[in-house]
Amino acid sequence: MSKVHRPSVARDVAKLAGVSQSAVSRAFTPGASISAKTREKVLKAAKQLTYRPNIVARSLITRRSRIIGVSMTRLDQFNPHLLEVLNVRLRAHGYGTMIFVIDPTHDADLVLDDALQRQVDGFILASTRPSAAFVKECNSVGIPVILLNRYSDERTIHSVTGDDIGGSRAIARFLMEGGHKSYAFIAGQSDSSTSKRREAGYTEELGRHGVKDVMKVTGDYTWEGACIAARELLSKPDRPDAIFCASDYMALAALEVARHEFSLSIPEDLSIVGFGDVVAAAWPSYSLTTYSNPVDRLVDEIVRILIDIFSKGGQKGGKHEQAIVSGQLVVRESARIPAPARETGTGA
Amino acid sequence: MSKVHRPSVARDVAKLAGVSQSAVSRAFTPGASISAKTREKVLKAAKQLTYRPNIVARSLITRRSRIIGVSMTRLDQFNPHLLEVLNVRLRAHGYGTMIFVIDPTHDADLVLDDALQRQVDGFILASTRPSAAFVKECNSVGIPVILLNRYSDERTIHSVTGDDIGGSRAIARFLMEGGHKSYAFIAGQSDSSTSKRREAGYTEELGRHGVKDVMKVTGDYTWEGACIAARELLSKPDRPDAIFCASDYMALAALEVARHEFSLSIPEDLSIVGFGDVVAAAWPSYSLTTYSNPVDRLVDEIVRILIDIFSKGGQKGGKHEQAIVSGQLVVRESARIPAPARETGTGA
Repeated sequence: MSKVHRPSVARDVAKLAGVSQSAVSRAFTPGASISAKTREKVLKAAKQLTYRPNIVARSLITRRSRIIGVSMTRLDQFNPHLLEVLNVRLRAHGYGTMIFVIDPTHDADLVLDDALQRQVDGFILASTRPSAAFVKECNSVGIPVILLNRYSDERTIHSVTGDDIGGSRAIARFLMEGGHKSYAFIAGQSDSSTSKRREAGYTEELGRHGVKDVMKVTGDYTWEGACIAARELLSKPDRPDAIFCASDYMALAALEVARHEFSLSIPEDLSIVGFGDVVAAAWPSYSLTTYSNPVDRLVDEIVRILIDIFSKGGQKGGKHEQAIVSGQLVVRESARIPAPARETGTGA
Repeated sequence: MSKVHRPSVARDVAKLAGVSQSAVSRAFTPGASISAKTREKVLKAAKQLTYRPNIVARSLITRRSRIIGVSMTRLDQFNPHLLEVLNVRLRAHGYGTMIFVIDPTHDADLVLDDALQRQVDGFILASTRPSAAFVKECNSVGIPVILLNRYSDERTIHSVTGDDIGGSRAIARFLMEGGHKSYAFIAGQSDSSTSKRREAGYTEELGRHGVKDVMKVTGDYTWEGACIAARELLSKPDRPDAIFCASDYMALAALEVARHEFSLSIPEDLSIVGFGDVVAAAWPSYSLTTYSNPVDRLVDEIVRILIDIFSKGGQKGGKHEQAIVSGQLVVRESARIPAPARETGTGA
């Protein structure tokens, strides 16, 4: 890169501010011990000289890149608001966010290898399943790996999820209170732990109340997949009058098919419920009843786990957390509302 | 960070593969000269030793971080699909993507300073306006800055945009061919160059055909802002029968207000058109007529400009590109279709 002027270095700033070079370094280190007055002097001099500490050079000394890798298969199905909140919160702790979008038909480890070359301090994996070998390697070098909205029974990895089972039970109860006759479930990808847990909570709760037959089709978490699944269900002679979809995105698609292809009234002819409470769920054309996955608290948990590990010098062996963040039933207009309980939150 | 085992280094790989350390380095450098056979030997040995080149250490030598900073104010208004395509394309060229979400009420330069500390090789700024001082500094150290979907008349910065003026002219012609009587525009933020250009194309084309009075209200690019703007327009005694919104997102909001609060039939009572062709524009409940901003070609232009500059060793003075990517009119059902031309693309 052609440098037209020599960039200022810490020495220049220390000289102008009349402090030590170590004070300059501490002024730019989040959490370092330095008086407010000294810090102010340094920042003023730094501004005057347009000095910026070289985080890259520092990372070679501290062995901390201060970068968190965030990986997902599809960004538009990932909650962009969550990525935004995560980015702002991580920055407040001095961490940058590097994203790694993974083609679901390719080997996730190839992309994650790229992230390791970049010496990320931690990984957040959404809709990505790393190999056991990869997880083992991260653990051996002390890099924490957190699955987001994906649950792992192997206790070699952290996970932060919404309340898949509790939420799905609440949805089942709400639908039963609405007096439906026939229940269906549109599942996500077949290997999705999240979809399996949502299905389990739903069918178990229905089963506890005597509803044993639940139709199930797979929508693959995609718009098109959910449309095909909805068509299959609604073409049946004994079509369901209540459909729970493993994601809001699939519920929106199912709603479109029901309304525009089968001319069904929602919720008079058919109740549709999602999971997540994405932004579009609140748009009047959908007004989707759903169970929320609260973004702020999911991010709180992720940041808490990471910062806790970093403060201890990295992931050291044993403890891996399985954090579950509870949400709430968000009652809108896409599902029949039980007569005696016409307010948001009841039935949860 | 606690290392449980010593990570393999290039020396180990060279020894196992029976090649020089320089060959190991070249095998991991995109575009470096090396025979396919040697490269294969190196990769095999590297795999065996789970060796990964340390991109961070290398970046101190090459003065290239191989990181591109991408900055935006709101991620959910940013096109997530564009970020996804950009991430995959940049990675194919050996570049990582670091995101910097900026609170619009804060000083963008503070966040961009953070990015400079991380030694990014280039900046892509969407919905972010850097200060002139910041741009000057980037230019002086050879870091290219590209505005995305934001146009700059100052020739000190690159920009890649959709065809705001041509697209808005096409929309104006399409609405006039539909025989509307009264036209309105819902603008984005008042300082948005993109909104100004979309407004200019629309009003100039209408003006050329004798339509001089165009109602204008500001929707601020937000959902709530667009709802307020639509309510204002539709409450007028002389309410418009054609509304062009500076973004698809605002057009969806306006459509909801028209349909659910004013019980208007779309497009019989009112035509609504957006700009961008986001994913939700195609959802049947909206079926939004719009002008496309083709993601793949916007990304093509960004990557072309960056790689061209990097191949020359950085941004050296003078030339800044203003790339405009043309899209096409996407005719759906939210605006009246001119009688003789009932196919997609006509009117453009």
